This record gives sequence, C-alpha cells and structure tokens, in this order.
Amino acid sequence: MKFKAPRGMRDYYPDAMAARNWIMERWHRVSLRNGFEEYDGPIMEELDLFRVKSGEGIVSELFHFADRGGREMAIRPEMTPTLARMVAARANALRKPIKWYSVPRLCRAERPQRGRLREFFQWNIDILGEDDILADAECIFVAIDFFRDIGLTPEQVVMKISSRSVLAAILRINGFAEERLEAVYATLDKRDKLAPEEFSKLIETLGVPEPQEQLLLKLGEAKGPEGITMLGEMVGQDPEGNQEVDNLERLFDLLGDMGVGPYCLFDMGVVRGLAYYTGPVFEAFGKGGLQRAICGGGRYGELLKTVGGPPMSGVGFGSSDVVIADLLKEFNLLPDLSPVTAVFVIDADPRNPTLFKRVLSITAELRRRNITASYSYRRQGIGKQFKQANDRNARRVIIVEEATLTDNTVSVKDMGTGVQQPLALEAVLDDPFQPLEPA
Amino acid sequence: MKFKAPRGMRDYYPDAMAARNWIMERWHRVSLRNGFEEYDGPIMEELDLFRVKSGEGIVSELFHFADRGGREMAIRPEMTPTLARMVAARANALRKPIKWYSVPRLCRAERPQRGRLREFFQWNIDILGEDDILADAECIFVAIDFFRDIGLTPEQVVMKISSRSVLAAILRINGFAEERLEAVYATLDKRDKLAPEEFSKLIETLGVPEPQEQLLLKLGEAKGPEGITMLGEMVGQDPEGNQEVDNLERLFDLLGDMGVGPYCLFDMGVVRGLAYYTGPVFEAFGKGGLQRAICGGGRYGELLKTVGGPPMSGVGFGSSDVVIADLLKEFNLLPDLSPVTAVFVIDADPRNPTLFKRVLSITAELRRRNITASYSYRRQGIGKQFKQANDRNARRVIIVEEATLTDNTVSVKDMGTGVQQPLALEAVLDDPFQPLEPA
Repeated sequence: MKFKAPRGMRDYYPDAMAARNWIMERWHRVSLRNGFEEYDGPIMEELDLFRVKSGEGIVSELFHFADRGGREMAIRPEMTPTLARMVAARANALRKPIKWYSVPRLCRAERPQRGRLREFFQWNIDILGEDDILADAECIFVAIDFFRDIGLTPEQVVMKISSRSVLAAILRINGFAEERLEAVYATLDKRDKLAPEEFSKLIETLGVPEPQEQLLLKLGEAKGPEGITMLGEMVGQDPEGNQEVDNLERLFDLLGDMGVGPYCLFDMGVVRGLAYYTGPVFEAFGKGGLQRAICGGGRYGELLKTVGGPPMSGVGFGSSDVVIADLLKEFNLLPDLSPVTAVFVIDADPRNPTLFKRVLSITAELRRRNITASYSYRRQGIGKQFKQANDRNARRVIIVEEATLTDNTVSVKDMGTGVQQPLALEAVLDDPFQPLEPA
Repeated sequence: MKFKAPRGMRDYYPDAMAARNWIMERWHRVSLRNGFEEYDGPIMEELDLFRVKSGEGIVSELFHFADRGGREMAIRPEMTPTLARMVAARANALRKPIKWYSVPRLCRAERPQRGRLREFFQWNIDILGEDDILADAECIFVAIDFFRDIGLTPEQVVMKISSRSVLAAILRINGFAEERLEAVYATLDKRDKLAPEEFSKLIETLGVPEPQEQLLLKLGEAKGPEGITMLGEMVGQDPEGNQEVDNLERLFDLLGDMGVGPYCLFDMGVVRGLAYYTGPVFEAFGKGGLQRAICGGGRYGELLKTVGGPPMSGVGFGSSDVVIADLLKEFNLLPDLSPVTAVFVIDADPRNPTLFKRVLSITAELRRRNITASYSYRRQGIGKQFKQANDRNARRVIIVEEATLTDNTVSVKDMGTGVQQPLALEAVLDDPFQPLEPA
C-alpha cells in the first residue's frame, strides 16, 4: 500500500527542511534581538475559541473534530486566538508591555493555491499592554529588520501602512453610520485585488449616495506623504480626526528615526479584511511578480475582551513561510544549504581493526566537543573513504594510522587547500581547525 | 467567555517555552554533530497509514477526522509511519546510509498521566539502509551523547540493551512456535512493570509447559556481561543463535570503543512492546524516582515493506520531551533561563525629544547588527530607566546624552561591574562589550 502526504501539505526532506530552518532561524534571531520572548500553545483549541473571534463562517475553513469527551476541537488556523486566550488568563501577572513572538504550525482546510497551503508556519509578533504608537512602530520595524536580515532591499519589498482609525474618522465626518463601517472596510480591502472598473462596481453595491461613493474612490488613492496631507485636509477641524492624522504622521517619523523609512509607504488602499483592527494597519509586498502580502497586521483594541479578558490593546503581525519562501526564490536569496561535515575520520589501513577502534573513539570525542564528525561504516581503502569525506563536504580529514597507535599522532588534511600535516591527537581534538603548514 | 488549553496539552508561556527550547536546542545540536539531517512531515496523515503500522487498535488513541474530501485523517501520534512513508517514496534516490532526525509535535488521545500528555514533542533518530550493527551502536551513542550533553552521568541514567533476535533464537531453540513469539514479547515486556509474583502469574496465562515457563522467568533475569555469557550457553551450538549472540557482544564492544560503555547495561528484561523490532532493542531509564523509559528504540527489519517500500532495514529511537523535562527537574539540571537583554539604551534627559530619536536609531542599529537591544517606551527619569534595564537583565546600558548630539559619544555602563565610561558611538556599535576602564 502506497501513501502520500495529505493534499496541500508538505513533506520536508532534508533539503526542504534546511530551507524551512533557514527562514525560521532568522525569524527567531530577529525576534530575540528586538526583545521579544517566544511562546506557543497547543496545536488544537476548542472550536468555540475560533468562532468567538471570527464568526461561524470560520468553521468550514478548519480541520475540526470531537475529542473523546465529545468536545468540539479544531487545529489552529492562526495564532491570535491562542495568544488572546493565554494573555487574558494571566493579564494582571504579566509584565507590560508584553512583547511575545511565536512561529506556530497552522492548518487551514481551504483549497491549496500559490502562496496558500493547507499547512504552513507563520511568524507572529505582538506587543500588548502599550497604547502608544511607539509599539506599532516597533512591530513594523521588526518586520523590516527581518526583510533586511534576509537581504531584501527597499527596491524589492515595500511596507504599506494605513490607519483604520483615520479612515473611521473620515467616514464618520462624512456621514457613514457606524454599523456600515465593517462593510466599507471589506469593500476597500478589495481595491488592490480588482481592476478599477470592477472596484467601482463593487463600491456601487454598497448603495451609498454619489458623494460618499466618490469619497471612497478618492480615499483608496491616497498614497505617500501627499496622501497624509490629503487626509489632514479631509478631517478638517475635527479634533479626533486631527489626533489620528497626527498619530499617523508620528508613526512615519518614528520609523524614519529607526532607519527604515525607505521601506515604508503610506497607502490608504491597505485596509485589512479582519474586523478587529482599530488603529494603524500594514501589509508588506514584494515588488516583483509576487502579488500576495508577505506580512500583515495592525493595532487591535478589543481582541482580549472577546475571549473574556481585560480591555488591553495590542498590535502585531503574521507572516507565512510559504510566501517568504516564494520571495526568496524570486530574488534568489537562499544560499547553498548543503550539509557540511566538519571532520571526517579515516583509517589508513582497513585491515587493522585496532585503527578502526581509534576512528570510533576520536569521532565520539569530537562529537562530545560539539564538532560535527563522521566516518565510513565500511572498512574500505583510503581512496574510497576520502571520496566519502568529499561527498559529505568535509572541511578536514583526520587519518588514523600506525603512528596514532605508537605516538598518538594523526595526519590532518584540509579539504579546501589540500594541505596535510601530522599533528598530536590531543592538539587536534582541542582545535581541529588550526592552521596547517605544507610539508 | 473564558477558554482554557485543551486537556492534557500545554500552554508555553515564555518561561515554559525557554525550557522546551533548551531541550530542543540540545536535540538539534547533538543530532547535527552526529551527522544526522533533519526532516519533518505534515502534522496529519491518512488514518490508514497508522492502521497499517499498528493495527485497528491504534484508532481509538488518535485524534482523527474526515477532511473536506471525506478522507479519514489523523494527527500523528508518532513519527515512524511518516518516516517510513517518506523514505519508501524515495528509497532508491536517497544516499545510504540515511541518517535522519526529527523533533515532531505529536498528539495522542489517551488519558493524560505523569510523563504522558496528549500533546508532546519527541526526538527521533533513525539510520536506514545499513544492516551492520555499527548503525545500532551509533544510534545508542547519539542518545547517550545527548544525556552527557545535558549533564546526566552514568550514576543518573542507564541505557538498557537487549536483543529481539537473540531472544527469538533462544525461544525457537526451546520449541516456541513462531506465531507465539509476539504474545511472549508482550508478556516479557511487562516484567519490570510488575511485582515478581504478578509477573509469574502473567507467564502462567501464556499456557506453555513448565520448562518453557521456567525459561521465560530465567531469561528476564539475564543482566550484565554474565547475562550475555548465559545467553551464549543457552544458544549452544545453534549457528544462527551463536551469530546473534556474537553480534550483541560486538555491539557492546563498539559502545566501549565510543567511550560510552559506563552508560550501557545488557538487560534481557528490555523487550519493547512493539511488534516490528527484529534486532537489538534498547531503553534508557533515570536511576532516580522516575520509572518511565526516557528513550526507547531498536532495529526494525520490515517496516518499510508495510507501507509499500523496499525491504530496507533501519534502526532508531524516540524520546519525549515530557520525560526529559521530568528528569531535568529531578536532577536539577536546568539552568536559569531568564531572558537577557544585551544592551539597554537610555536617554539622559527625557524632556529632550532629540535624545530619544538617537535612542531609537542606536537601538535599531544594534539590532541590525544582531545585538539584543531594548529601550523604555516611557520618557521618564534616568533612574526609572535604569531600573527597567535591571529588570530586563541588561548586560550593558548605553546613555544617550548632550555629548551624543555634539560629539557622537555615549556613556556605557557595565551592569555587572558598575563601571561606566564615555566612548565614541561608532566604537560602541562595533563592539558593545569591549572592556571598560574605571574613570
């Protein structure tokens, strides 16, 4: 009977695993150097947790099932509900601001397509318990710090930033009812995914008066510093509107101070589909052929309350490994990840079993000292063993020979330069990569 | 609405996550230095894959469900079926021996108890495509290399090693029918979990003649070098039996050559419950109060064939993070894992916004250079900022002051020694931990 990986899910053979780890290691190191602490939750949660956050519609997108006690469970499709649950449970005890990151495995029971698989990993960065827009700036900085870390320039990637609260103020000033906002957000969010005529048609379906229609079309075009100026004019003398525009300007100032201004662009076309955003929102895009957002997030004000927690605001983003991997491929940024053997240990005379005993003990001792060491499982000629060392990208070869038994010396060969030198075994164990001198 | 983590599953708040990572990092580094490459598969597989390996009885221990196409899926309870599937699919293309490791997240729908949770992580080490007992020795060495790495001595942990093939030969020589072996293995496997009288009673339920009963009781007592000598006597002149005993002796010789002999003990009481083992089997135990095996594995001959693969033999083991964590706790081996901030950046005058701009740019630049750097979100007095630096275990504090704006110098304070010195900013960015001289 032959089996395959489930549809839309990946097998990670060592070469694919190395690529996944390359991304993950950078997620970890960028998170840590920005002062975030890692957390994680279980692979599954109560189905109701996802219902509470996203509504009944989410259920058909989940792998869900009853556990043995009959409780409805689901494999997590995102990390935010777990984050909200965990923070809500210890909201008072946790030191603020809470700066947490996670790299969860997630599953969605949706049709697999480019950039979206049924199983993926997602980098999550969140700051909770800090209302100042400095926290928003910090989250956006972390995403860009990662882009820089993997070699993406402002010519290859752009962080588009907008503000739900500015948008809400302008809509309010222009007579949109509070209860219409969610539908308006959902419509505006589709702007960049549609042709202009299609977007105009979609706007019409909202059934708002002509001037409001024109406003929505105009809003979607606000971009760059002039776009922010335009927003300033649109809020006029409205105090709350003015404060929100000032906040947005401050966000760009902070990002400039942090040295990542060239990556950032104000773009009112970024709205984000989710209902729970209440402040700045942002999405990063590759500037090449890749259309999908490579990172997206924003400020959420009420999330914790939906899971029974206190009224604590947060800001964060998620970024999937699938789109990052596509981007790395597109810009050819992934280095050669072939495994390297630091030291390969060889016996000079495969007919002498005593030499092989020393091969084993030297290899074991190197490993104990945290050096990646290997040897051949076959007692075969030195040429074949050297070939094996070569196949495994060995940096150095240690040759166990007669002199090893009599004088405790070995020959060490550098596989890069070809230089070979006899050395005391103890010295080699202490520093297997010491400079070698040609004979 | 309040939500909790699912029963028998863990939330990893940062302190628990740090402990999990401490174990995982050591699993990774020990695997890599022993020449293993990492692989992974999806969190779920077709339910039939687990049925094929373990029989219908496994189904009730799994979280399983129908996907949208109606296919029966299950969250993986172990890694071996996925390993077998992946290796079988590329059996010819993969370079032998295949040395792979993985640290999968696994779930079992069983009653949670000490050492066994419904969700856990398991270190998996496997060598496939190498029949020589050297591969068995290497797997056992890797487990012990890990024990040494986390600080466990031969006084704290023992690797008990036995052999299914020696056992099979002795049973065959003594007239046990082939089809009885599985029931005998399952019975012998319970020996160390039962009181002697209970074990005797269990043996009786096998319904074998008195001499065979005596043999089974005697076998379970074979331990240490004398135990192997006893086996040698029991196989007598039987050629296959002799070869298997020789192999077992060679295994101990190899482990001795590798320098881990003091951790190893021959113990015929180790049988392992699973049907598919065909050669050496082994289990490690803590010598303190912890009763459960902290690692278990062995040689499997036919596993790949059960999933449609070629007749390739393998050897491997698994070790769960739950029992390792219990052991670390018991022997007090986990170090302080509080997060450390390498550098904390402070502004000397919170009323001067220009200083804070430099705090932001210096912090951002340190992070870009992979230094963990933080600053206070609040513009507050220098004393409060120092307190925050202290709370976050800062090694060094950089003070941005008037001189930073005029001369590009900062004051650097070592939080360990208390020494503070003004330095050129560029020099500090290049090496934030350079030695400081008392004024």
